[in-house]
Amino acid sequence: MTVTLRPMDVASRLDRLRAALAEAGIPALLVTRLANIRYLTGFTGSAAMLLVGPDAASFVTDGRYRDQSAEQLSANGVSATIEIGGSAGAQGEFLAGVARDAGYAGIGLEAHGVTWAQQRSMAGWFTGTELIAADPIVEDLRMVKEAGEVDRIHAACAIADDALASLVPMLREQPTEIAFARALERAMVDRGASGNSFEPIVASGPNGAKPHARPTERVIGTGELVVIDFGCIVEGYCSDMTRTVSVGEPSAEARRIWEVVYEAQAAGRDAVAAGADCATVDRACRDIIDDAGWGGAFLHSTGHGVGLEVHEDPRVSSASTASLRSGFVVTVEPGVYLPGIGGVRIEDTVVVTDPGSEPLTAFPKTLVV
Amino acid sequence: MTVTLRPMDVASRLDRLRAALAEAGIPALLVTRLANIRYLTGFTGSAAMLLVGPDAASFVTDGRYRDQSAEQLSANGVSATIEIGGSAGAQGEFLAGVARDAGYAGIGLEAHGVTWAQQRSMAGWFTGTELIAADPIVEDLRMVKEAGEVDRIHAACAIADDALASLVPMLREQPTEIAFARALERAMVDRGASGNSFEPIVASGPNGAKPHARPTERVIGTGELVVIDFGCIVEGYCSDMTRTVSVGEPSAEARRIWEVVYEAQAAGRDAVAAGADCATVDRACRDIIDDAGWGGAFLHSTGHGVGLEVHEDPRVSSASTASLRSGFVVTVEPGVYLPGIGGVRIEDTVVVTDPGSEPLTAFPKTLVV
Repeated sequence: MTVTLRPMDVASRLDRLRAALAEAGIPALLVTRLANIRYLTGFTGSAAMLLVGPDAASFVTDGRYRDQSAEQLSANGVSATIEIGGSAGAQGEFLAGVARDAGYAGIGLEAHGVTWAQQRSMAGWFTGTELIAADPIVEDLRMVKEAGEVDRIHAACAIADDALASLVPMLREQPTEIAFARALERAMVDRGASGNSFEPIVASGPNGAKPHARPTERVIGTGELVVIDFGCIVEGYCSDMTRTVSVGEPSAEARRIWEVVYEAQAAGRDAVAAGADCATVDRACRDIIDDAGWGGAFLHSTGHGVGLEVHEDPRVSSASTASLRSGFVVTVEPGVYLPGIGGVRIEDTVVVTDPGSEPLTAFPKTLVV
Repeated sequence: MTVTLRPMDVASRLDRLRAALAEAGIPALLVTRLANIRYLTGFTGSAAMLLVGPDAASFVTDGRYRDQSAEQLSANGVSATIEIGGSAGAQGEFLAGVARDAGYAGIGLEAHGVTWAQQRSMAGWFTGTELIAADPIVEDLRMVKEAGEVDRIHAACAIADDALASLVPMLREQPTEIAFARALERAMVDRGASGNSFEPIVASGPNGAKPHARPTERVIGTGELVVIDFGCIVEGYCSDMTRTVSVGEPSAEARRIWEVVYEAQAAGRDAVAAGADCATVDRACRDIIDDAGWGGAFLHSTGHGVGLEVHEDPRVSSASTASLRSGFVVTVEPGVYLPGIGGVRIEDTVVVTDPGSEPLTAFPKTLVV
């Protein structure tokens, strides 16, 4: 598969964050969530902090990433000073010095991203400076995807589509759930994914009644519902798709469940559009399942954002107060789970557009394979 | 590979935690770190909280895990009431009721595991009850492994050994780093691993100068050092091993670096024993590298615990104040990294015994393959 991925504009993101900070009245933000640091700088390592003020940004990491941090920030055109610190204490001292010199009146922490213990030690670094429990401000920026980001998610979705298509013959040979899950993983990696976006779910027969079942040694029988929920990663960006299929004709009851979920998922997709409330999309799915009498068996919310993390904002749920905007990438994935019988979930990842949405996952939705 | 894994005694762990809480003066602990919840209950799902008091334990999760939580707690003989709550708010209300009814004078939170934002909402649940920033008390229990846990780590190590052995011929055929990393992943999964314990590092030539390099499309040439750091998971337990090899004879300088790191790693392993200080083990490795003149190029600490998490306590570093005890499982992994030239790291996972240690990783340490 050869796909041209449009470039991403990493370098402009710090200034977009600065505008958001100014609006929120936060003098400077200490970014510690790695997905956010990757978003803002292109750095892919496992340890770093980034202090962003109105005029400067300071990136600290440890010796393992000395070369990598310099290369990645430079390759992305990111303007930040890099400091290598051997310990959290030394890194904290450096950041405290930067904050003191700049005279920040307060420093926002990612309250959803730092532990209580970290907040307590950071209070020790920045003595005399107010720490502000900041909302997910970088995550808010990340919700609207650039064209280059959509391309990477789309590439990951296309790999997943193609991997599943290549494995339909295997499904007919009564593999175990684990064997099929592993084959999916391999097929995605063989097609250029850097890995799973999460461990694949392959849940057959009664196992399908657990929305997040882990694959077992159970053999996938004919006429059984199999929930297959999987995804991969391309250049850091995730895909997420679920199909529920049966090898051979399933029971009339299984077919009825599948048809209701199919209808619910289509209604959910139809409800997705710039300006639509997340809760309305959830409602569109839920109404159809409620009407069929299985409301109590739709055990989770309708969807979530997808990007550098496989689960990110916005949450598409009844409790959500968020509205969709152009460029959001979200899943629509209603399901019905009946203990002792099994489950059905159908999920697409779609990009929100002004008139509606475009699907990024494309594998056909058919019950019998 | 057929290995008999001795059973684990999950059911007794809650009482061991209760004894530790009593000693720490913590009336009850709200466990939220998933690895800790898995350790205490056998639950493998992705969302749960566990409130442990002197006489009772309450496990809360959401509807996705209704069946799975009941099955896993029961299969492990864990005594806890299970509550299914649709939202964090409902779950918090339930836990607050339990705490009120039990009259806990204070509730410990895993300060290293809850976010600042979570601590702020939990303060809202448990109004009038003091929240205590608890140290990693479950992690402390987890450091000493039961025989059944060592067996699972050993099984994961044996799979990694065997996977690497099977791929030596491939290494001679000049694969790219990515192709070799993927082959390793597949070989481990084919041998029964449920997945990687972390994304394999395959860093050849100059790429080896980054301790945590991600595999690239670079072709692994003859006479080059290749750092191969990888591991897998068996029943939740991780393995971790690094070998640095060269296909054909490397430069004299590369050989010299390899020999120093080999010697340092052997010295580190020799220093491991029940009662030894972690800092002493680190020193044993570091002294040899210092003496060779590469002290500044050993960019990380010597090792870490391995278990349900691939990096867990204790940290084997110069800053550590911990001592090793029988049943700890730790890595010994000194390295030397020279920008523009490359790197060498050699790592074993070992179980600490009273006289010394037993290696769990066994792949031969030879430079030229």
